Amino acid sequence: MQVNQEILKNVKNDRFAQLLGIEVVDVHPGYALVEMKIEDMHRNGIGTVQGGAIFTLADYAFAVASNADGSTTVAVNASISFFKAPRGRYLRAEAREESKNRKLCGHKVEIKDEDGTLIASFSGLGYRKVSE
Amino acid sequence: MQVNQEILKNVKNDRFAQLLGIEVVDVHPGYALVEMKIEDMHRNGIGTVQGGAIFTLADYAFAVASNADGSTTVAVNASISFFKAPRGRYLRAEAREESKNRKLCGHKVEIKDEDGTLIASFSGLGYRKVSE
Amino acid sequence: MQVNQEILKNVKNDRFAQLLGIEVVDVHPGYALVEMKIEDMHRNGIGTVQGGAIFTLADYAFAVASNADGSTTVAVNASISFFKAPRGRYLRAEAREESKNRKLCGHKVEIKDEDGTLIASFSGLGYRKVSE
Amino acid sequence: MQVNQEILKNVKNDRFAQLLGIEVVDVHPGYALVEMKIEDMHRNGIGTVQGGAIFTLADYAFAVASNADGSTTVAVNASISFFKAPRGRYLRAEAREESKNRKLCGHKVEIKDEDGTLIASFSGLGYRKVSE
Repeated sequence: MQVNQEILKNVKNDRFAQLLGIEVVDVHPGYALVEMKIEDMHRNGIGTVQGGAIFTLADYAFAVASNADGSTTVAVNASISFFKAPRGRYLRAEAREESKNRKLCGHKVEIKDEDGTLIASFSGLGYRKVSE
Repeated sequence: MQVNQEILKNVKNDRFAQLLGIEVVDVHPGYALVEMKIEDMHRNGIGTVQGGAIFTLADYAFAVASNADGSTTVAVNASISFFKAPRGRYLRAEAREESKNRKLCGHKVEIKDEDGTLIASFSGLGYRKVSE
Repeated sequence: MQVNQEILKNVKNDRFAQLLGIEVVDVHPGYALVEMKIEDMHRNGIGTVQGGAIFTLADYAFAVASNADGSTTVAVNASISFFKAPRGRYLRAEAREESKNRKLCGHKVEIKDEDGTLIASFSGLGYRKVSE
Repeated sequence: MQVNQEILKNVKNDRFAQLLGIEVVDVHPGYALVEMKIEDMHRNGIGTVQGGAIFTLADYAFAVASNADGSTTVAVNASISFFKAPRGRYLRAEAREESKNRKLCGHKVEIKDEDGTLIASFSGLGYRKVSE
C-alpha cells in the first residue's frame, strides 16, 4: 500500500512536532520511525528529558503510522511506561500497527535512546474518522 | 502539610514546561492546578492542540502535585484519554492525589478548556525515590 | 434519564460476573455501584485478591454504567492502577461517566474495600456501537 | 537463567486462575505463554468472552513471566486494548519482558485466539518487592 501524501502533509505540518525538532525518518502504512535530537529545551528541572517530550515523540510516531494509509486517525487513548533516563544525543520512536478494524486501530511504540536502550513503551488507540 | 519549596523549585525550573508556557496557578501537597495559554506553537497539522501538548500539561500538574510534599517522585506510567478538541484561549489541568504509600503514588488529572469542558483525562503513577 | 431495562438485562446476564458473585447495588445512566463478596476463589497464590478479579469488578461497573442509557457500549481500552491489598469482606466498584460523545465515552471507576480504602483506580474507554 | 521453582509454585497456586482454567504452556524468566479453553463461564451477556476473563489471562501471563526470575513482583499498573471478539476454542496470552531495573519491570502481553488473531494487547508494569 502506498503512503497517502496528502494526509501525510497534514501530519508533517504539525507545528508542535516542529517546535520540538521531531523528524520523520521512515514511514509506510502502519509503520513510522521518527527522531528527536535532544536539546536543552526538552529537559525538565532535574536535567533529564521531560516525560511530555518523550510522549510527544511517541505520539507523533503513532500519528504518522496510523495516518499513512490515508485515513484520518485521531488518538483516543495512550498509555506510556517510562523505564530509564535516556543517554546520548537523540531519541527514536518506532511505531508498529498491532490491529486495525473499520473504526479503531492499535499501535505499539518503542522509544529508544542513542545506545539502543528502551527508554519508554507506548500503546496508542486511534479512532479512524475517515476510512481509506 | 507545607509545600516543600526546595523541591518545587526543581519542578518550576522545568525548561520544557517553560517552553510551552505552562504556569502553576495553585499547589499544595497532593494537589496542583496549572494553566497553558493556547498558542500557535501548540497546534498540530489540523489546527487543534496537539496531544503531546495536552499530555505535557497534565503530566506537569501531576509532577507538581506529587513533588510538593518534598519527595522526589518520577512518573513511571501515565494513561490519557482524549475526549474533545478544546475551545477558548487556555487549558487548565488539575491534579489530585488518589493514593500514596511509601514507594508509589497515584494521581488523577482533569484537563479542561476555557468553557470548563473536560478535554482529556489522565492517570499518573509515580515512583517516590526519596520519601519525605 | 431512565435506565434502559432491555439493555441492562444483557449486562446482568453476564455469566462471568455471576461466576465471581458480582452484584449490582445501584445504577442510573452514567453511574453504577457494584459489589463482590470476597471468597477463596478470588485469591491468588499469595492469598490476596487476584488483580483479574479486581479488574473484572471494575470493568463490570463500567459496563453497567455505560450501557444503562440504552446504548450498546463495548470497552476498547482500560487502564488500572493497583494501590493496596484489600481488607474486609467485600469490594465495591463505583463507576462515573467522565465524558460522552456520539461514538466514545470515558468512565472512571474507584475500587474500595470494606474499610473504604481505595484499592485500585480504573479508567475505561467505551465505543458506543448503537447510540441511544 | 533458571526458572525459580519456589516462586513459580506461588504463581501456580493462584486459585482465581485455576477457577478460570488457565494453564501455563511455557515459561522462562521474562517470558510466559498461558492458555485458557473458552467455556460458557467466561462469557458475558452478549455471548462473547468477558473482558475481565481476557484481562485475567493476560495478567496471569505477566505474573508468571515476571516472577519466574525469583523476584516477587506485583502488578502496579496494567493497560489493555480490546480489538476483536475471539473465535475458536481457546485463547493464548504470551508475555515478554520489555525492561527491568532494580525495582520496576515492564511487560507486553499479546492475547490471540485459536486463529492466531490478535484479540487484545496488554501492557503491565510490575513492582519488584524482592529482588533476585
